[in-house]
Amino acid sequence: MDEKSSGNENRDGASPSRTAPRVVIVGAGFGGLAAARELGNTEVDVTVIDRRNHNLFQPLLYQVATAALSPADISEPIRRTLGRYRNIKVMLAEVVGVDTAAKRVNLDYGSSVPYDQLVIATGSEYNYFGHEDWRAWAPGLKTIHEARLIRQRLLLAFEKAELSQDPEEKKALLTSVIIGGGPTGVEMAGAIAELGRFMITRDFRKLEPDHMRVILVEAGPKILAAFPDNLTAYARQALEKMGVEVMTGVTVEAISKDEVVAGSMRIRTGCVIWGAGVKASPAGRWLGIEGKAGGRIPVGPDLSVTGFPDVYAIGDTALGLAEDGKPLPALAQVAKQQGEYLGKAIRTGLLEGKPADPFRFRNRGNTAVVGRNSAIFDFGRWTLKGWFAWLLWALVHVYLLVNFEKRLLVSIQWIWRYLTRQRGARLIDENAASFVPSSTQRTET
Amino acid sequence: MDEKSSGNENRDGASPSRTAPRVVIVGAGFGGLAAARELGNTEVDVTVIDRRNHNLFQPLLYQVATAALSPADISEPIRRTLGRYRNIKVMLAEVVGVDTAAKRVNLDYGSSVPYDQLVIATGSEYNYFGHEDWRAWAPGLKTIHEARLIRQRLLLAFEKAELSQDPEEKKALLTSVIIGGGPTGVEMAGAIAELGRFMITRDFRKLEPDHMRVILVEAGPKILAAFPDNLTAYARQALEKMGVEVMTGVTVEAISKDEVVAGSMRIRTGCVIWGAGVKASPAGRWLGIEGKAGGRIPVGPDLSVTGFPDVYAIGDTALGLAEDGKPLPALAQVAKQQGEYLGKAIRTGLLEGKPADPFRFRNRGNTAVVGRNSAIFDFGRWTLKGWFAWLLWALVHVYLLVNFEKRLLVSIQWIWRYLTRQRGARLIDENAASFVPSSTQRTET
Repeated sequence: MDEKSSGNENRDGASPSRTAPRVVIVGAGFGGLAAARELGNTEVDVTVIDRRNHNLFQPLLYQVATAALSPADISEPIRRTLGRYRNIKVMLAEVVGVDTAAKRVNLDYGSSVPYDQLVIATGSEYNYFGHEDWRAWAPGLKTIHEARLIRQRLLLAFEKAELSQDPEEKKALLTSVIIGGGPTGVEMAGAIAELGRFMITRDFRKLEPDHMRVILVEAGPKILAAFPDNLTAYARQALEKMGVEVMTGVTVEAISKDEVVAGSMRIRTGCVIWGAGVKASPAGRWLGIEGKAGGRIPVGPDLSVTGFPDVYAIGDTALGLAEDGKPLPALAQVAKQQGEYLGKAIRTGLLEGKPADPFRFRNRGNTAVVGRNSAIFDFGRWTLKGWFAWLLWALVHVYLLVNFEKRLLVSIQWIWRYLTRQRGARLIDENAASFVPSSTQRTET
Repeated sequence: MDEKSSGNENRDGASPSRTAPRVVIVGAGFGGLAAARELGNTEVDVTVIDRRNHNLFQPLLYQVATAALSPADISEPIRRTLGRYRNIKVMLAEVVGVDTAAKRVNLDYGSSVPYDQLVIATGSEYNYFGHEDWRAWAPGLKTIHEARLIRQRLLLAFEKAELSQDPEEKKALLTSVIIGGGPTGVEMAGAIAELGRFMITRDFRKLEPDHMRVILVEAGPKILAAFPDNLTAYARQALEKMGVEVMTGVTVEAISKDEVVAGSMRIRTGCVIWGAGVKASPAGRWLGIEGKAGGRIPVGPDLSVTGFPDVYAIGDTALGLAEDGKPLPALAQVAKQQGEYLGKAIRTGLLEGKPADPFRFRNRGNTAVVGRNSAIFDFGRWTLKGWFAWLLWALVHVYLLVNFEKRLLVSIQWIWRYLTRQRGARLIDENAASFVPSSTQRTET
């Protein structure tokens, strides 16, 4: 043991001395990782804590849910991302609380980590507005686990439909309901419509393309509310051209295993997806803060949590304000810019004692993809839609993907699928065959 | 409904008339698919039944288990593989029995499918020799589900070790035990040794390469028993050079959650993998056959099941004999050749009334990969080992991969990993962080 523990000593020797300022970052999403990178290979002693071992490129998660990409194509081990920085330690653990008096972060397995400065970058989760029981039937799209679940249900519904003898049940199984007309909802609706049509015409013998229904339900007056009207109108048209039924101003009353009650309609369905509104992670509780606008933690111009000078919050979980005083949107680019800003600010603050200028968000353009060849871009001053927007969207996302290998692989898969319309990741897990529709209790002849 | 059912009629119109001979193939592995392809776009009415929706390229499954490839990289939807053949119907269902008198295959959900000729290609499963309780702690490597499970345990053990405060526990968590010295066991041992060393040196701060142990336990006198001694000796050397402890002539007495009792040794471990011996799928029972040598179904020179002229068995689940009267090995190439032979034979038999010559197995060479840059090849007359064998192995497997996209993607990933030693698919599922070692119940300072 002595030998090995001395081995540990040597290892620790590589990382900064115990007197180095200690920064703990909770959450390794776009924001947390950007902050960590800025602090990489400095004299700061950094600990990154996440309950997952991988960092997920969420903008493409809908492609995992629709069997276009594999989970590993859009996720990277956090240890790999940060491995090159000798002063950064990564812990796979769940934070259960923060002791702001003792300046310690408490972890799920009883241990705790001390900090001088704490960065909370824990993101957001789907908001079921009090209907937690809906979660089981209508998963959101935040994690690889949920994406796999949706993929599983989607593909399985088609398999069941192929076996089913009852036309009504067949139709129900081929009906997908997406709740929430935000970017995720729109992207899912488009992708499911494309996947379904492709699979039915190519791979199924007893299904007809017009057996399939994709229904997008939005409670508000329009989909993609964050975008200007001309883009919204275009997106709606594009969706409807793909066969998606867009229902605006319709609220969901109930969700069960195979039925959605939307407004006055009862819709039998094989797959329900939840994309209606997010709320901040419960990190506010750790500080005893109520949180505003969906539990988001109010932060000042330096991104420090109001009332906690040593605690910062960034990304979806923080309520930052733009120069016009409006709350910043919950977007990857906001989280990323805040992370970079904060990383720099902490570095210069801790090591050089320089105060930082207030954070300024630069809008890099807001985008949503409707389907093959059609997307929308909003750059504030000007907008873009259609094929060129789609191309730009694809280029931007390929570029953003975290590492070269994946950028290359994903590009190849996209080009290949674009040429062949193939779907590469149509996997149903082993124990799937047991799900079969009741009405198939009948002998074929 | 009328419209839709008439729609179905039209669809069915494309497939052969009801009077066409009906061939049912159970199992879409190497054998089943090869047989189906031979019957594709003929006047035969073919139904392929599998309990999974995907066909798995098992020779590379160990790379999924060790985070090198994604499940979708080595699996393809059966519907895609067979989609282009209008006379082939695919059913996602589990066969529960065969009524040889009525000539019907009974499915799990109460339905049944009629056949004129039945092909059983249901493969094999791991044999725990009566210790079914070991399965939970020592998964085999036959399905994507098992590969994900092993990957999860492997990666999680390293994460736990990084957090652990107890050197003994750290060491236990970094100890992997592979049971069974066949190709799968050897491939897993080599791949785990490489993965572990790479991850520890690059991504972990509190682990040392020499904390890690990979133990390969074989009950017989030598590993890779099917190979000539010079290759076996080389493989053992290569493994030991990679730090794998090879124990031959040692039988496993007990397996529990975190301990393996092998011979007189009690080995605390973070991950156990079972690769010791397979048995045929229980398909024999469907015919009321006992089965020989691990439940394999005896077949004649035309691959028909002895006593059942209309039922054929191929691949791991069949006990075919080579020209020298020895049983054929349970290898992918045997299944594939039998499938091609049987598909042709059924086609010519049913459509032209021609009897087929007896099946002859042509040995394409038996191979096993030990690790980066080292593999072995046995072509009977001559053998090959080392870097060139590894290159050949890689080329052959890339070539064998079922479709172009994947062949290309996998090649790129291999080349990339070869240059960078990166591992692309190091995913731990969401609910993983909860697993943490007991001894970490202690506050860091």
